Amino acid sequence: MAAAAAAASARAALPRPHLALPSSARRSPSVSLAASPLPGLRGAASAAAPPELQVTTRLGDVIEAQQFDRAALSEIFEVAREMEAVERGSHGAPSRVLEGYLMATLFYEPSTRTRLSFEAAMRRLGGEVLTTENAREFSSAAKGETLEDTIRTVEGYSDIIVLRHFESGAARRAADTAIIPVINAGDGPGQHPTQALLDVYTIKREIGALDGIKLGLVGDLANGRTVRSLAYLIAKYQNIKIYFVSPDVVKMKDDIKDYLNSQGVEWEESSDLLEVASQCDVIYQTRIQKERFGERIDLYEAARGKYIVDKKVLDVLPKHAVIMHPLPRLDEITVDVDSDPRAAYFRQAKNGLYIRMALLKLLLVGH
Amino acid sequence: MAAAAAAASARAALPRPHLALPSSARRSPSVSLAASPLPGLRGAASAAAPPELQVTTRLGDVIEAQQFDRAALSEIFEVAREMEAVERGSHGAPSRVLEGYLMATLFYEPSTRTRLSFEAAMRRLGGEVLTTENAREFSSAAKGETLEDTIRTVEGYSDIIVLRHFESGAARRAADTAIIPVINAGDGPGQHPTQALLDVYTIKREIGALDGIKLGLVGDLANGRTVRSLAYLIAKYQNIKIYFVSPDVVKMKDDIKDYLNSQGVEWEESSDLLEVASQCDVIYQTRIQKERFGERIDLYEAARGKYIVDKKVLDVLPKHAVIMHPLPRLDEITVDVDSDPRAAYFRQAKNGLYIRMALLKLLLVGH
Amino acid sequence: MAAAAAAASARAALPRPHLALPSSARRSPSVSLAASPLPGLRGAASAAAPPELQVTTRLGDVIEAQQFDRAALSEIFEVAREMEAVERGSHGAPSRVLEGYLMATLFYEPSTRTRLSFEAAMRRLGGEVLTTENAREFSSAAKGETLEDTIRTVEGYSDIIVLRHFESGAARRAADTAIIPVINAGDGPGQHPTQALLDVYTIKREIGALDGIKLGLVGDLANGRTVRSLAYLIAKYQNIKIYFVSPDVVKMKDDIKDYLNSQGVEWEESSDLLEVASQCDVIYQTRIQKERFGERIDLYEAARGKYIVDKKVLDVLPKHAVIMHPLPRLDEITVDVDSDPRAAYFRQAKNGLYIRMALLKLLLVGH
Repeated sequence: MAAAAAAASARAALPRPHLALPSSARRSPSVSLAASPLPGLRGAASAAAPPELQVTTRLGDVIEAQQFDRAALSEIFEVAREMEAVERGSHGAPSRVLEGYLMATLFYEPSTRTRLSFEAAMRRLGGEVLTTENAREFSSAAKGETLEDTIRTVEGYSDIIVLRHFESGAARRAADTAIIPVINAGDGPGQHPTQALLDVYTIKREIGALDGIKLGLVGDLANGRTVRSLAYLIAKYQNIKIYFVSPDVVKMKDDIKDYLNSQGVEWEESSDLLEVASQCDVIYQTRIQKERFGERIDLYEAARGKYIVDKKVLDVLPKHAVIMHPLPRLDEITVDVDSDPRAAYFRQAKNGLYIRMALLKLLLVGH
Repeated sequence: MAAAAAAASARAALPRPHLALPSSARRSPSVSLAASPLPGLRGAASAAAPPELQVTTRLGDVIEAQQFDRAALSEIFEVAREMEAVERGSHGAPSRVLEGYLMATLFYEPSTRTRLSFEAAMRRLGGEVLTTENAREFSSAAKGETLEDTIRTVEGYSDIIVLRHFESGAARRAADTAIIPVINAGDGPGQHPTQALLDVYTIKREIGALDGIKLGLVGDLANGRTVRSLAYLIAKYQNIKIYFVSPDVVKMKDDIKDYLNSQGVEWEESSDLLEVASQCDVIYQTRIQKERFGERIDLYEAARGKYIVDKKVLDVLPKHAVIMHPLPRLDEITVDVDSDPRAAYFRQAKNGLYIRMALLKLLLVGH
Repeated sequence: MAAAAAAASARAALPRPHLALPSSARRSPSVSLAASPLPGLRGAASAAAPPELQVTTRLGDVIEAQQFDRAALSEIFEVAREMEAVERGSHGAPSRVLEGYLMATLFYEPSTRTRLSFEAAMRRLGGEVLTTENAREFSSAAKGETLEDTIRTVEGYSDIIVLRHFESGAARRAADTAIIPVINAGDGPGQHPTQALLDVYTIKREIGALDGIKLGLVGDLANGRTVRSLAYLIAKYQNIKIYFVSPDVVKMKDDIKDYLNSQGVEWEESSDLLEVASQCDVIYQTRIQKERFGERIDLYEAARGKYIVDKKVLDVLPKHAVIMHPLPRLDEITVDVDSDPRAAYFRQAKNGLYIRMALLKLLLVGH
């Protein structure tokens, strides 16, 4: 009988999600590095090899920071800016842009900050949310279901999937499986592209420009995926200068340095945070992660106390400059810094809302 | 003073939920088996005793597969079919059928698949959801609250309760307590009626008919509640033929065989999956559950590898036939089967959405 | 450049949330006790000191039972009464009063009853919800984030925060940090003001009055924050008589007794539950908490069995009187009491919905 074949072809005929990225990106797909300098893409980071261009798997998904070129970034930032007004209008005239759309937040590990940010973004646009905080227990009956099978089930219930996973590469596997759009909300040591986007957006929003920025990256530069992604993305702009300020044990790795060289981006290492702060537009502080040091608690204690952003840093920081941090913050920025107008980290977190609103709108209904 | 009595009588006077099942069912309550052949109703399955008719406790709830007669199934399937169009219209013209209704998903054990399916169903109809994924921790203060007390509290906050529980019979206790409708989303080894409904609906949807179907049930037939419920429900139709294909240690039990005999349903056991597949309209594969074998890992390994649905099965399966599976799937269906149009298991999962939309609509606002 | 400073001043210029409490309260802030008699405010309960007046930190938040004077209670109860009609209209004409508003339920310990009640309240008014059931795992990366940092992040995503925390004083810290309103949904051994409000509201709703009430408090009076808050709030009314009925090991503490004396409230201790029940308008039963007895299981067993509300209590209880309980209930009220119209505890739980609807409306959009 024809019913089975009809149903199957009906599935095949499902409309592809609206490809919302700018037409330039659609015609000539955005690029990524074969020798990817970003964490979690193991074996790919041959430091000496010149990065080659490579087509990103799919548009219509947000999988990795590398997929965005300047044009794509510009469009996302423009829409994010519009989202500030949309959010302000929530009480009087709430948006219905995503009315009738369902987002599934499929989280295999907890990340309440990121989850709430996505869910707030969906709600602020009039959309609805299906939440899964402990997707590891997707079924009480069997732990062994593949991610692909889970995705094919969840895509039947929703219009877009936001995936947080503990394995590098999981988001790409999900996107390769799903008919509906997938957004990577962090896949283990791999990518966290919406964090990278909100970081760049925050610089643009706070300083007013991206070309010509002087940026100090501070803290754990070896393991922090945020600073690595930020260095990668900011290299797309002109006349960038980057200072690396970190304890010796967690210095920025050669792959990123080589990439910056290949892009003509000026960079230098420094052990003088005050000197760097006095010359920068942006100080981007990060947390030293204890778990990276194993049993060497002594090394951890030495590293974490070495570069603290405090009042002394504020004293030398230019009036127009800002301090950023991906949060959560422990004591690498002292709390007496919070009240300074240049402390931008909570505004940065808020920008995550606007960036995610922009992405949801672009992926689901387009510009 | 009269206030207390007035409040109490106000409670008693609360309107009963709309009894949405068809008028025939309402007038003559649907029937179930005293000697219930379904799992979890222990002590009831005296194999030799002829099944007797018995009135189901309440309409207005969905508690067990046995409560549905052919007329009720027909109505549910008809509404489920309409729900496909409702879902397709979500973006342009989202349904407001359940606007202002609140569904509480009260889950005492995780079952993300089932929970998301219900929550998506509610949302697609314009309703709202209160989620409880870990109802075992209903209160941090006391673990000892009875299910009945919890239900009487939750019914004050919602319009319908979807209950997942680890104890057989919990759903019936909840329904006996609640004034608002209760849907059983699985109660331990007991019932999972919405799974049974979506299985039968999938056969009708994929093959186009239920009378005259040839059905191969494969895998763990002793413990799987889905195949037991399916065998029970399909027996309501004409000219059914069922093949049981399973390792010896997990053969279909006598209670179901006796019931099929009493209903005049033809069945046979076979150890030749290919022979069966060549003659069937539907192959319903199930997972061999490791936990049923205790320490006999050797028996488990032998059983799980015995009947695999793979390309060889596809080679002999009729063109119009389909392969079903309740999911999650481990390796009892090989992944190279997925791309065949006859692989119906993800469409089957999707049908769970339509069935649950139909039930929510029928229970809350009627036809 | 000016962008950073502009953004900072924009933040400072954010409108304060609408101060919804009555204008009298706004002009002359409501009062609390310096020598606070309520649990969790340690060191404050110097029994002999006459209570002094002290300005409550902020209006626009709901932090502790003491912040409400009679006028504030009256307004909240009036709005709560209106909410019954709003809820009844949910299906035909659902409220849109809080459309476009987002409530974040930030729960650091499970309390599903309280959480569902708040979330249902928000939904019944047309608002939306962001849920966090396990805020302790706010970030998988770092356990050490301060509550203040978490609040500053979450307030960027929502319009009101409902906080449940395991530490006494957490809600006040959150309110001192947040620009948006904060509601305390219980902070450890500290406060649970919405429970206190719903208790007083239930007396008014069931008995028809608050002045002149005779109230029997039964069970664990030493540790139960609900009975302590209730004694405190009811003392604001005229001609109150309170009976304390409790095992010796968990008697009402002197701070509350002294406070009642200072307010001219008549009270007495009794060991005869039946005698008390025959004279009361309200019997408020509470659970004896096992965890308070440590290894003295014998003392616990003796205490828990001593004062049970059962049919014998109903026999002597006046016709107009009611039995209340904050729930969950173990066996301190026998289940055969439930069907008596004077068993008010499930209606009391339901009143929690109306009180929370009223508070959300008052805090977010005013009267």
